[in-house]
Amino acid sequence: MNQPKTDARCHHDPGVRGFASDNYAGTHPEVLAALALANDGHQVAYGEDAYTDNLQRIVRKHFSARAEVFPVFNGTGANVVALQAVTDRWGAVICAETSHINVHEGGAPERMGGLKLLTVPTEDGKLTPELIDRQAWGWEDEHRAMPQVVSITQSTELGTLYTPDEIRAICEHAHAHGMKVHLDGARIANAAAALNVPLRTFTTEVGVDILSLGGTKNGALFGEAVVVINNDAVRKMKHLRKMSMQLASKMRFVSVQLEALFAKDLWLRNARHANEMAQRLAEGARSVHGVEVLYPVQGNGVFARLPHDASERLQKRFRFYFWDEADGVVRWMCSFDTTEEDVDEFLAALKEETAW
Amino acid sequence: MNQPKTDARCHHDPGVRGFASDNYAGTHPEVLAALALANDGHQVAYGEDAYTDNLQRIVRKHFSARAEVFPVFNGTGANVVALQAVTDRWGAVICAETSHINVHEGGAPERMGGLKLLTVPTEDGKLTPELIDRQAWGWEDEHRAMPQVVSITQSTELGTLYTPDEIRAICEHAHAHGMKVHLDGARIANAAAALNVPLRTFTTEVGVDILSLGGTKNGALFGEAVVVINNDAVRKMKHLRKMSMQLASKMRFVSVQLEALFAKDLWLRNARHANEMAQRLAEGARSVHGVEVLYPVQGNGVFARLPHDASERLQKRFRFYFWDEADGVVRWMCSFDTTEEDVDEFLAALKEETAW
Amino acid sequence: MNQPKTDARCHHDPGVRGFASDNYAGTHPEVLAALALANDGHQVAYGEDAYTDNLQRIVRKHFSARAEVFPVFNGTGANVVALQAVTDRWGAVICAETSHINVHEGGAPERMGGLKLLTVPTEDGKLTPELIDRQAWGWEDEHRAMPQVVSITQSTELGTLYTPDEIRAICEHAHAHGMKVHLDGARIANAAAALNVPLRTFTTEVGVDILSLGGTKNGALFGEAVVVINNDAVRKMKHLRKMSMQLASKMRFVSVQLEALFAKDLWLRNARHANEMAQRLAEGARSVHGVEVLYPVQGNGVFARLPHDASERLQKRFRFYFWDEADGVVRWMCSFDTTEEDVDEFLAALKEETAW
Amino acid sequence: MNQPKTDARCHHDPGVRGFASDNYAGTHPEVLAALALANDGHQVAYGEDAYTDNLQRIVRKHFSARAEVFPVFNGTGANVVALQAVTDRWGAVICAETSHINVHEGGAPERMGGLKLLTVPTEDGKLTPELIDRQAWGWEDEHRAMPQVVSITQSTELGTLYTPDEIRAICEHAHAHGMKVHLDGARIANAAAALNVPLRTFTTEVGVDILSLGGTKNGALFGEAVVVINNDAVRKMKHLRKMSMQLASKMRFVSVQLEALFAKDLWLRNARHANEMAQRLAEGARSVHGVEVLYPVQGNGVFARLPHDASERLQKRFRFYFWDEADGVVRWMCSFDTTEEDVDEFLAALKEETAW
Repeated sequence: MNQPKTDARCHHDPGVRGFASDNYAGTHPEVLAALALANDGHQVAYGEDAYTDNLQRIVRKHFSARAEVFPVFNGTGANVVALQAVTDRWGAVICAETSHINVHEGGAPERMGGLKLLTVPTEDGKLTPELIDRQAWGWEDEHRAMPQVVSITQSTELGTLYTPDEIRAICEHAHAHGMKVHLDGARIANAAAALNVPLRTFTTEVGVDILSLGGTKNGALFGEAVVVINNDAVRKMKHLRKMSMQLASKMRFVSVQLEALFAKDLWLRNARHANEMAQRLAEGARSVHGVEVLYPVQGNGVFARLPHDASERLQKRFRFYFWDEADGVVRWMCSFDTTEEDVDEFLAALKEETAW
Repeated sequence: MNQPKTDARCHHDPGVRGFASDNYAGTHPEVLAALALANDGHQVAYGEDAYTDNLQRIVRKHFSARAEVFPVFNGTGANVVALQAVTDRWGAVICAETSHINVHEGGAPERMGGLKLLTVPTEDGKLTPELIDRQAWGWEDEHRAMPQVVSITQSTELGTLYTPDEIRAICEHAHAHGMKVHLDGARIANAAAALNVPLRTFTTEVGVDILSLGGTKNGALFGEAVVVINNDAVRKMKHLRKMSMQLASKMRFVSVQLEALFAKDLWLRNARHANEMAQRLAEGARSVHGVEVLYPVQGNGVFARLPHDASERLQKRFRFYFWDEADGVVRWMCSFDTTEEDVDEFLAALKEETAW
Repeated sequence: MNQPKTDARCHHDPGVRGFASDNYAGTHPEVLAALALANDGHQVAYGEDAYTDNLQRIVRKHFSARAEVFPVFNGTGANVVALQAVTDRWGAVICAETSHINVHEGGAPERMGGLKLLTVPTEDGKLTPELIDRQAWGWEDEHRAMPQVVSITQSTELGTLYTPDEIRAICEHAHAHGMKVHLDGARIANAAAALNVPLRTFTTEVGVDILSLGGTKNGALFGEAVVVINNDAVRKMKHLRKMSMQLASKMRFVSVQLEALFAKDLWLRNARHANEMAQRLAEGARSVHGVEVLYPVQGNGVFARLPHDASERLQKRFRFYFWDEADGVVRWMCSFDTTEEDVDEFLAALKEETAW
Repeated sequence: MNQPKTDARCHHDPGVRGFASDNYAGTHPEVLAALALANDGHQVAYGEDAYTDNLQRIVRKHFSARAEVFPVFNGTGANVVALQAVTDRWGAVICAETSHINVHEGGAPERMGGLKLLTVPTEDGKLTPELIDRQAWGWEDEHRAMPQVVSITQSTELGTLYTPDEIRAICEHAHAHGMKVHLDGARIANAAAALNVPLRTFTTEVGVDILSLGGTKNGALFGEAVVVINNDAVRKMKHLRKMSMQLASKMRFVSVQLEALFAKDLWLRNARHANEMAQRLAEGARSVHGVEVLYPVQGNGVFARLPHDASERLQKRFRFYFWDEADGVVRWMCSFDTTEEDVDEFLAALKEETAW
C-alpha cells in the first residue's frame, strides 16, 4: 500500500529487536489496524463511546457477567486506581517486597494514593497465606496502617506463576480477615497462556476482587484497564480514575485496542508466542557453559546468572538489563514480536561471549 | 488499500460529527500514519527512544534552544506535573475561577499534587495583574498557602484569547513577586492560529516559565507534553512525571504523534481550520433571531444564549453541551474535522429550532 | 502559695493584654488547676484513660447520648480530621470564601486531607441554602470534585452568628442533597453565649453531623475535639486522628482541660465575658468620631473601619491586627481575661488617636 | 497549699504506676510549675512569644549557634515535618524496618508527607552504612523513589543505642551520597544519659542534619520540637509546620515546658533516673528463672522473653505490653517517675508469676 502522508519520519531501524523489555516492542499490526477502524466521525469523549461500551461486553465474557472495566493509560495508573478503590483513607496494602508497586512506581502508591505498603520478602516473588500473615494483623490498632488489601502480581516480576489454587488460598485467607485481593495483571496474558486456562480460572473463580488488566506489554500501543470483579467492594470508580489523572478523553482508542486483543484470541496468541520464545531462550541458555537460569521459567522472562564481563559484551550486541548487577543476574524478556531467529542469534552470541 | 486484519469492529457511524467537544473528534489521518512509521522493531521504553529525542529538537525550534519537552498522557496530567514542578510543598497556584484546573480536573491538583488553588473571578476567563493581586500577597504568612505560580489558559476555557502583551504583563507582574507563570495550552494551537504568530511569541518571548502543550484536541489520538522554558525553575522532571503516573512506557508513540503535528504545520492547519469553522458558526448564529453570541469568538469555541427549549430540540439533532443551563448558555466547539457543511447544516437546524 | 521549683523563668509582663486575638490569652486558672488534678500516677496513653472516658460522658450531656468525642491538638487538626471523616477520597467541601479552612490553614485541608474546597463568596461569612447551591451540583460528574459536606463556622470568622433556624435550613438543604454538615466551632462557646441557648440547640437539634469543638480560644492551654453527632456518617475516627498526626499520647491532659471547661459552666462564663467585653468595646467605638463598626457584633470580635494612621498609632499602644489593610478595616478580639478596664483604656486611646 | 478551684475531678489513683510506656507517666512537677509561670497576660500567638524566643537560645546552647527550633505537638508530627523538610516531592526515606515512622505512625509519613519509606531489616533496630546501602542506590532512576534522607532513632525502638562514632559513620556515608540524616529523638535524653555525653556529641558534632527532640516521654505534658542543625538543608520550616497541622497557637506553653526541661538539667535528671530504673529492672529480671532479657539494655526500656502464661498473670498486676506476643517477648518501660519500690515490687511479682 502507499505510505500515507505525514510530516513524521522513521527514526529507527525497524529490524532491530532485543531482550530488554516487553515494552520495547511496538504495537501488534492487528491493534494498529483497530485504531483506524475506530477513527473518523465523532464519539462521546471520556468513555461514553461505543467502543468502551463494547469492551464492557468483552471483559464480562472473560471474567463474569458482573465485571466492570475502566480503561486507563498505564500500569502504574491501573494499580493506583485499583488499590485506592479497595482501601479507606487509613488502609494499607500487603505486597511482596519485589512487587512493581513497591519498587518500580516511583512512590506513586504512597504519594498519589496515600497508600502505605506493608511489604514481605519472598523467595520467588510469590505471596502465600503464611507470608501474608507477617503483615496481616493489628486491624484495630490505630498506630498501624490498616491492612485492607493483598496485592499479588500474575505472572510475577520474577517471571514466576501462581497456580489457580495458590491464588484461591490467598483470596480465602484475605477474605477471612476482611481484606480484598488485587491482582496486578500487567502480564496476565502470559500467565493464562502458561497455565493454559481462561482468565477467569485464576481470577473470578478463585476470589480476586479487582485487577489491573495489561494491554501494553501484550501488544497494545498503550492502554490498560482496571477490572472490577467484586462490584460490592468499590464505589465511584469513574471519579477515582479522573482524580487520578487516568481518564482518557478519546477513550475509544484505548477501548478498541483492548477489543483487538481480547475480542477473540490475539491476547493469547501474543502471550503464547512470547512464552514460547522465553522457553526456547531458557532451554538454549541452560546448555551454555557458565550460564545459570534462575527461577522456573513460567512466563515471557528469563532470569540468568552469568559472568559480568560476558553480560557486558553481550549487551553491546543485544539490549537487555541487569536485574541484580552485584550478583551477576540479568533479565531477558521476550515479546509478541520476538522471532525464533532472534532467540537463536542471541543464543549464538551468548555462547560466544561466555566462551572467552 | 485492503482493510488490515483485526478482530475489532467499527461500532459507530464515521459520518456523524457534532459540536460537543474537540475531543469528540478522532485522530487526524497524518497522525495515524505517523504511528505506523514508528512501529516495528524495538525502541527503548520510557522516553529514551529516537522519537522523543527528535521531538526535543522540534520543540526547541518552536520555543527556544533551552526548552525541554516531557510527553505525558493527558491534559490534567500535564497540568499537575507542571504545577508541581514550579511549587514547593507549601506552594499555591493563582488561577481564574473558570480555569480547567479548578473546575474540570476532579480535584486532581489538590489531591494528587497537594496544590492549593487561589481562585479569582473573572469577566472572560482572563487574569490580569490587578486580578492576580487579589491573591498575590502574604508570602511570609505561614497561615496562608504561599502563592508561587500564576496559571493562565491560552486560549481560555471561555474561548477568549490573551494578546502577547497581556501575557507579558502577567509574567512581569508574577516574576516581580517571585512567582512563576504556567500556561495551560490545551488549545495553544488555536491561540497561535487566532493571533497569527509563532508559539514562542506569546510564551518564551513574553516570559512564560512552563506550559502544557496540547495535542489531543489538535488531532492526536492522545498525547500532551509539559514544555519547560525556564530550566532554572525546575528539577527532576522525569521523577515528577513518573510519580504522577504520567510516564508512558512506549513513549515513541506519544512523541511521533507530536512530531506529526509540530514538525511542520499540521498543528497550525488543524487549529486554523477549527477556528475558521467557529467563525463561520458564530457569524451564522449572530444572524439567527433569538440567539446571542457571548464573548469574542477568538478560538474554536462559540458560547451562545438561546431559549432553553430550542437548545433541547437542537441537541436531539446535534450533540453539544449546556455551559450554564440555568442561564440558557450553550457551548459549540469546532475541531480539525468540522466541515463547512457540518456548520451550515447546524445553522439551518438552529434557525428551524429557534423559529418555533 | 510558694512558687514551685522550676528552671523556667517568667519572660513577659503578665499585666499586659491586648485585642489581637483570643489565643494571645493564657490559660484560665481553673483549667490550669485541672492539669494538676490529673497529674501523678500512670494513665493509659492515647485516650484509654479515665479523663477521656469521663469527657465522653460530659460531651454526651451537651450534644446527645450517641455523640462521640475525639480530643485533638488544634483547630486545624480538628477540622481536617472531621472533614476527612465525612468525605470519600473524591469528596469536596462547600464553604464560605472567608472560612478558616480556606484562608488560614496553610492549605492543610488540601495537602493533608486531599480535600477540594468549593468556596462561595458571602456578605458576612455566613452560608445560606441559596449560596450553597452555587456549588451544590454535579454529583455524577467525574470531572468535578464531588460536594459531600457543607462546612460552616459558628460564630463565623467575621464575628457574625447563625441562628439555630438558619443552621437547620442549611442542614436540611445539605441532607436533601446527600451531603453532611460540619460545624467549625473554634468559637462555638461564644455563639452559645450570644444566642443564650445550649450547645445542642444549634447543633444536634438542627441536624449538624460533626463539629470541631473549640477549647483553646475559650481558655484552654491547648486542646480541641472532634465531636461526632451522626455516628452513622463516620468510621474509624481513631485511625483518622492518628494518621492525621493529631493523637496526643498523654491524652488525659487534653481531656481534663475540656472537663474543666465543659463539666459545668466555665466554657459559658468565659464566652459570656468575652462577648460582653466585645459589646462594651463596640458600643464605645461606635461613639468615636471617624470609627465605623462593621457587621453585627455577635461574638467576641469587633470589626471596625478607621483612618489608617489612627490604627497605626493605636497599634503602638495595644496589639491588634488589620483585617483588610487596604480598606482600613481592623479586628479587635476580646477574650476570657479581657477586663472592663482594658476596654475602657483602649477606648480612651482610640479617641485620642482618631482625634488628630 | 489549697487546692485551686476547678470543676474537673481526679478520676484515677495517682499512686498507681506501671511499666507499659513512658507516656503513661504524667508531667514532671517542675514542668507543671513552668506552665503557671508563663500564664497570665497576653503573648503573641503562633511562636512570636518570649518563651519560644528564649527556647531558641537554650536549644542553641545544646546543639550549635546556628540551630533552629520549631516546637510541635507530638512525635509523629515532629518526624513528618522534619522529613518533609529534607526531601523533595520525589524523595524517599531510608529507615530501619522497626522504626517508629514505619510501624507506629499509622502511615502518616506516607499519607500526610507523601514520603516513601525504604526499609531495611536490622538485628537490633540500628542502621549501619552497609545496611543503608541495601536501599541507597538508583538516584537517577525515575522508577525508584529517590533516597534523600536516612532516618535513625536514638535511642532506638528496641532500647539500643548508637555510639557517636556509629552515627558519624552513618552521616558521612549518607552525605557522601548526597543524602541528609534525620534523628528521631523521642528518647534522645535517655541516649545522652546512657552515653554520658552532651546532646551535641552524637548530633551536631557527628553530622546529623535535623532531629526530632522529644519532650513528652521525658516529663512534659505534651510537646516536642524539630531542631534544624543544618540550616542550609531546609527552607520555610514555619510553612511546613503549619500546613502539617503542628502549629500551636499558644506556643508559649510548649516552649516553656521545653525550657523547664532543657534550661538546666531536668531533661538529664529525668532520663538518668529512668535509665537507672531500667538497669535495676534488667538486673533483677536476669536473675529470675525462665526470664531472658533481650538486647543490651541501654536506655529506659527492657525487652524480655518469658512464658506467655506468666506474662498474662503479671499483666493483671502491672500494666505492660507484649512486643511480639507469638514469640513471648514483652517490653517494660521505665519513666522519670518510676521508683525503686515500683521496680522491686514488680520484680517480686515477676518471680511469683514465673514460679508457677
